[in-house]
Amino acid sequence: MSLLVVGSVALDGIETPTDRRVDVLGGSAVHFSYAASFFSPVRLVGVVGDDWPSEHTQLLQSRRIDTSGLQVVSGGKTFRWSGKYHPNMNDRDTLDVQLNVFGEFRPQLPESYRDSRWVFLANGSPLTQMSVLEQTPSAQLVVADTMDLWIETQNADLLKLLQRVDGLLLNDGEAIQLTGEQNLIRAGRKICEMGPKFVVVKKGEHGAVLFSENDTWALPAYPTSLIVDPTGAGDSFAGGMFGYLAECDRGLDSGQLKRAIAYGILVASFQVEDFGLDRLKEISRAEIDGRLEEFTQMLQV
Amino acid sequence: MSLLVVGSVALDGIETPTDRRVDVLGGSAVHFSYAASFFSPVRLVGVVGDDWPSEHTQLLQSRRIDTSGLQVVSGGKTFRWSGKYHPNMNDRDTLDVQLNVFGEFRPQLPESYRDSRWVFLANGSPLTQMSVLEQTPSAQLVVADTMDLWIETQNADLLKLLQRVDGLLLNDGEAIQLTGEQNLIRAGRKICEMGPKFVVVKKGEHGAVLFSENDTWALPAYPTSLIVDPTGAGDSFAGGMFGYLAECDRGLDSGQLKRAIAYGILVASFQVEDFGLDRLKEISRAEIDGRLEEFTQMLQV
Repeated sequence: MSLLVVGSVALDGIETPTDRRVDVLGGSAVHFSYAASFFSPVRLVGVVGDDWPSEHTQLLQSRRIDTSGLQVVSGGKTFRWSGKYHPNMNDRDTLDVQLNVFGEFRPQLPESYRDSRWVFLANGSPLTQMSVLEQTPSAQLVVADTMDLWIETQNADLLKLLQRVDGLLLNDGEAIQLTGEQNLIRAGRKICEMGPKFVVVKKGEHGAVLFSENDTWALPAYPTSLIVDPTGAGDSFAGGMFGYLAECDRGLDSGQLKRAIAYGILVASFQVEDFGLDRLKEISRAEIDGRLEEFTQMLQV
Repeated sequence: MSLLVVGSVALDGIETPTDRRVDVLGGSAVHFSYAASFFSPVRLVGVVGDDWPSEHTQLLQSRRIDTSGLQVVSGGKTFRWSGKYHPNMNDRDTLDVQLNVFGEFRPQLPESYRDSRWVFLANGSPLTQMSVLEQTPSAQLVVADTMDLWIETQNADLLKLLQRVDGLLLNDGEAIQLTGEQNLIRAGRKICEMGPKFVVVKKGEHGAVLFSENDTWALPAYPTSLIVDPTGAGDSFAGGMFGYLAECDRGLDSGQLKRAIAYGILVASFQVEDFGLDRLKEISRAEIDGRLEEFTQMLQV
């Protein structure tokens, strides 16, 4: 009921080896929200320009996503990203970035969001992420995502943020970059010592690894050959994971955290099956649970 | 009782970021045999020179590994490989290869081996591998390993071999190379169409994926930070896996194959904890089963 996400809202241009699309609904906050909405209501904070199609807002609202925190800047333009995937669909080149209104984004939470208990800080500058924490005094579980850019350019601020969050999500290359540890398992454990109660390292097609004080777990990805568009997979993962944690509403139980990661993996496995949100728009919670059943079976050794 | 392996027997020179060793007992047939011997007696076929220390043979014999197929070439020198690992311990550079007696290796099975029912063809030229099949008329389950060199230089022979084997092991890069498919899941399925009943793609620190007519399963690696020497990990994986299949002696049951892969992952996870066979020499089956219990728990989502 009070899962908050603050992040980007974007129109993406996506080129794959076999297809291309323009103006695809995207951005971290959008992917996160939609994925989380299978499990829990969501409150979204982001910014768009007046080129933003209102049907996108309606789509989000139809999914119990509260968009009262989506600021529309009159005369501004929405954040646009475009990229081209390599034939392996894992690597990609960014072709163009137009930050537009997102470049000046200083999140201001509506009064109605200030009691949010679950807070996801999608990838953004650590200072921006910190400013959200100051507006969420009721936060009980805070998870942040980050990226190589902030590790490199705002390292000190990022280290301060890590003291304030419960969980951190990042990919394997970033975990190695942040710690200087070449071994991923040592890197993950080292990040736990920097503050967060848990760290989830996302490895794309190789799954994810969780680190907490007492546990180190690895889960594989759902083995699929249907990868149409991986854009936003990390944010869908985060949304599935955090949405489930909010649904359970039981704090950080160890088994629950593992199931949350499994849900993250599975929601992301659907999300990559089509462009933008197209695949998630077609499915229901029952389909995700069906895949969880299959995944659970697969992991019975 | 009748698990046969044909492959290399070597003395390795190994350089890691923090240590270096010379004359380490190695080679695919050695790593495979030792790993498999936790589960089943093994029959080894290989070749060495008269520089081969007899205590290595005694070590193998002490582990219910039949060495009557280990040919000692008088006046010859044992195969030597040396390599240097990168700081990430995943990549390595080969520093030197001296094939010596292994260069002229034409496996001749002792009469007492010809009733072998389980046959593992460690990495070698497809023609050599095929020649072993012609000497094992009682084989019920044949699994082969291969590598980029043979995919590139002896492709037609390799494709013929695939018609004759039940299972193929190879790594992810090789699966992509063999099929031209950039997506690993499609690549694995395509190899199944080339003949084998099952294909296991080894992904090192990311685990393994199994493909069979009806199944596609992914399992993660055991998450460990203790990686002293990864040399031979793939062969230890194969030995743990095939040793367990031979122990069960029930043909290719689907659940059993998965547990076999788990054992392969876990034996390899011990093997990399020290140079050569040093770590495996310290442990018993009970320690492997303890880690299996832990692994099983980890995978309960």
